[in-house]
Amino acid sequence: MSLTNATPLEVAQAARLGSRKLAVLSTEERNAALTAIHKALAEGKDEVLAANRKDLEAANKAAEGGTLSQSLVKRLDLGKPGKYEDMLQGILDVRDLEDPINKTTARTLLDDNLLLSRITCPIGVLLIIFEARPEVIANISALALKSGNAAILKGGRESSASFAAIASIISRALTTTAVPPDCLQLVQTHDVIKDLLALDTYIDLCIPRGGNKLVSFVKKNTAIPVLGHADGICTTYLRSDYPAALAEKIILDAKTSYPAGCNSLEQLLVDASALTTSLPPIATALLAKGVSLRCDEPSYTALQSTLDAHNAALLQKASETDFSTEFLDLILAIKTIPSDDLETAIAHINAHSSHHTDAILTLDQTIADRFLAAVDSSSVYWNTSTRMADGQRYGFGTEVGISTNKIHSRGPVGLEGLTIYKWVIKGEGQVSGDYGAGGKKWKHERLGVEGEEVARSAEEVEVLRRFRRGELTM
Amino acid sequence: MSLTNATPLEVAQAARLGSRKLAVLSTEERNAALTAIHKALAEGKDEVLAANRKDLEAANKAAEGGTLSQSLVKRLDLGKPGKYEDMLQGILDVRDLEDPINKTTARTLLDDNLLLSRITCPIGVLLIIFEARPEVIANISALALKSGNAAILKGGRESSASFAAIASIISRALTTTAVPPDCLQLVQTHDVIKDLLALDTYIDLCIPRGGNKLVSFVKKNTAIPVLGHADGICTTYLRSDYPAALAEKIILDAKTSYPAGCNSLEQLLVDASALTTSLPPIATALLAKGVSLRCDEPSYTALQSTLDAHNAALLQKASETDFSTEFLDLILAIKTIPSDDLETAIAHINAHSSHHTDAILTLDQTIADRFLAAVDSSSVYWNTSTRMADGQRYGFGTEVGISTNKIHSRGPVGLEGLTIYKWVIKGEGQVSGDYGAGGKKWKHERLGVEGEEVARSAEEVEVLRRFRRGELTM
Repeated sequence: MSLTNATPLEVAQAARLGSRKLAVLSTEERNAALTAIHKALAEGKDEVLAANRKDLEAANKAAEGGTLSQSLVKRLDLGKPGKYEDMLQGILDVRDLEDPINKTTARTLLDDNLLLSRITCPIGVLLIIFEARPEVIANISALALKSGNAAILKGGRESSASFAAIASIISRALTTTAVPPDCLQLVQTHDVIKDLLALDTYIDLCIPRGGNKLVSFVKKNTAIPVLGHADGICTTYLRSDYPAALAEKIILDAKTSYPAGCNSLEQLLVDASALTTSLPPIATALLAKGVSLRCDEPSYTALQSTLDAHNAALLQKASETDFSTEFLDLILAIKTIPSDDLETAIAHINAHSSHHTDAILTLDQTIADRFLAAVDSSSVYWNTSTRMADGQRYGFGTEVGISTNKIHSRGPVGLEGLTIYKWVIKGEGQVSGDYGAGGKKWKHERLGVEGEEVARSAEEVEVLRRFRRGELTM
Repeated sequence: MSLTNATPLEVAQAARLGSRKLAVLSTEERNAALTAIHKALAEGKDEVLAANRKDLEAANKAAEGGTLSQSLVKRLDLGKPGKYEDMLQGILDVRDLEDPINKTTARTLLDDNLLLSRITCPIGVLLIIFEARPEVIANISALALKSGNAAILKGGRESSASFAAIASIISRALTTTAVPPDCLQLVQTHDVIKDLLALDTYIDLCIPRGGNKLVSFVKKNTAIPVLGHADGICTTYLRSDYPAALAEKIILDAKTSYPAGCNSLEQLLVDASALTTSLPPIATALLAKGVSLRCDEPSYTALQSTLDAHNAALLQKASETDFSTEFLDLILAIKTIPSDDLETAIAHINAHSSHHTDAILTLDQTIADRFLAAVDSSSVYWNTSTRMADGQRYGFGTEVGISTNKIHSRGPVGLEGLTIYKWVIKGEGQVSGDYGAGGKKWKHERLGVEGEEVARSAEEVEVLRRFRRGELTM
């Protein structure tokens, strides 16, 4: 990795060549590179923080001049207690995850001594475009190397000095490892984004890490597949049978635990018969947390007549756009669903949510199953908070992003999302003409993957369970 | 499905709405629709063939006028013995495949009574653009309905009468089933392609079924993900240790069994020390089959000195473009690789093949493993023919296409390639704020999928095997 005067084409070509060398390194070689990066960044802390202070000075000036937001300045600061250490620990955490590549995920015996295997491998070259946070460079570098992918990293202008320092340290560290330094390319000038997005011959996947504006811009300007989501408009559909206290707990968590998160609740759909039963205490609790409630006509009327005067005065009337808006703030749109009309709720969600995460609250399993099947979103929940949509919470160990795409990876994406597979056949001179009409028959025998066997029949499953319980010995 | 005056936008919106209804139908309902289509097309054979004869008449006139190729006219003809019956059988074959949707492919217990499942589901709306063959409409309709996807089918102008007849029969058949007829939309006018390709809000995946020109056009003109491959430039790398007779068999199959196929061999890389040993008999056999050999300098010289005068006179000299060309014909480019220089062969393939299918012929396992790992293609083979790259041969039961994409589906694509998954959480009121610092711990316990258990330890694997062999009883 280096800050370079190379053209975007040269950068992409170098990354591509590097990616082929990286793809064949062993788990140990890739892990050793992460260890080396960790060590170098630990030793280079002062150097990085000095550079970071330069970025902060410039950013503070810009913030005083009103051209930069204070929240962006905060995100720039690597000197906050624990932040640098978290960044370092993140590298080791990624290193210690299971290797996602070179895993055999399917095997079929096509014929005697003719074995087809599906083996996971890196995608190739990733283009990662991110906004202010300078620590992301370490996180993304670790994810890319762990999964055997080269990466072109395009950072934001505000953190250029921090980036340069981290990049130079990582670059030096890689020269002592088996990973070709070309596998990580840092690009900083803003005017090259469009050129990079045009290089779909060399770049296999683009991951924008930032707000709606960045993601939408990227999606509109490239033929490279884009992993991510522009909006996070999540909904929860409250049925009248669900206990009000549990509903309140779930809705409060979904709306208020991190309103700026893409998995936060933006719309509450309420069954008409819950308007005067479970909705009022929930509304009261939300208002107490400072949430603005934008109510459709029936919910507004119902709450006006049930809330106390103070709370009733706080209610707002929803406009149609409130049901297509990602607020990212303490605002919740409330829509009334005709009593027991599941299909209307589903149709509203499929038309208005951003297909990120949607939930139903009900005790009725039949209703819930219908909802879970019919809602076309990357995550669909029964009786839990939309804030569960997160790679760490899903147990992936890390999160590359959350995808609302309908192909490749959907929902929270772990390291697996940075891999694809290849089909490998090992034969002994068999050819296609040996098979078919008048020739040999294909065996097409599905085998377990190496080191595993799948118990498929009820009897086989039972045998395994008994063995595990110690009721059966060999 | 109907031939309609609707605009592309209306077509896509209707397909999208239909897709949501289709997605929640049961296996039995979708299969019943395929049975109904099969029955209707069997009964409507005369009607379809009458329409097909109109297309053929027009096509024959165009062929006489020189504006249409004879091979295209042949592909139009549904009246050839057995062709209509094959089309009908294909519908039943697809119906009888395992249902690819609603399969639980991963389960994680996040906490007590908080279960995360990954469940396969349809992608949504497919746009399928295909050239002359009218029987493809039945095949694609079957694949789409089986996998729960709506499809917009854009056929070629030459088969418009056949399409209209088949479409009207399928449409009538669907009205008797649970599948909304809007789920299959037939579009015929050519000038709507660009409009359809712009509708990435409603269409989730585009599958062009046709030649390089069609695929390249589609890829350049849409933001919709495209499944397929433009070129099939497949290579085989012959090492000097591999027995000449086996090499000859494999290379002949790869080059001559169906030269127009995308999985046919276009380039032979020959180790320098095989130039005068195994190459001459292979070259002689290829020439006898009418294959033109376009040789680089060293292979030309070597063959000139070893082949008989007649064969030597047939040899051609390769130009640089021959190593970036999909011939789709009885032509083979031959390139010499310095003796024992595996890396040069790999670098040539990664730079010049179309990442479709590439093979190595050698008895040396270490060399082969290195090749299989380093070649960045969707299928990589050891000691077999590139013609093996095919969904039927891989045991998928059917083939949607062959993809050289690096995301979603790679290589031969079966029904699985028309699916994605959603993440489902079933909880009991747990929320994100319950976990983390100071709160509860995640369990993150990986469970087997329903009805299966995976034996992971060597002991468990052994227990299963003994049970299967009857050496162990419950």
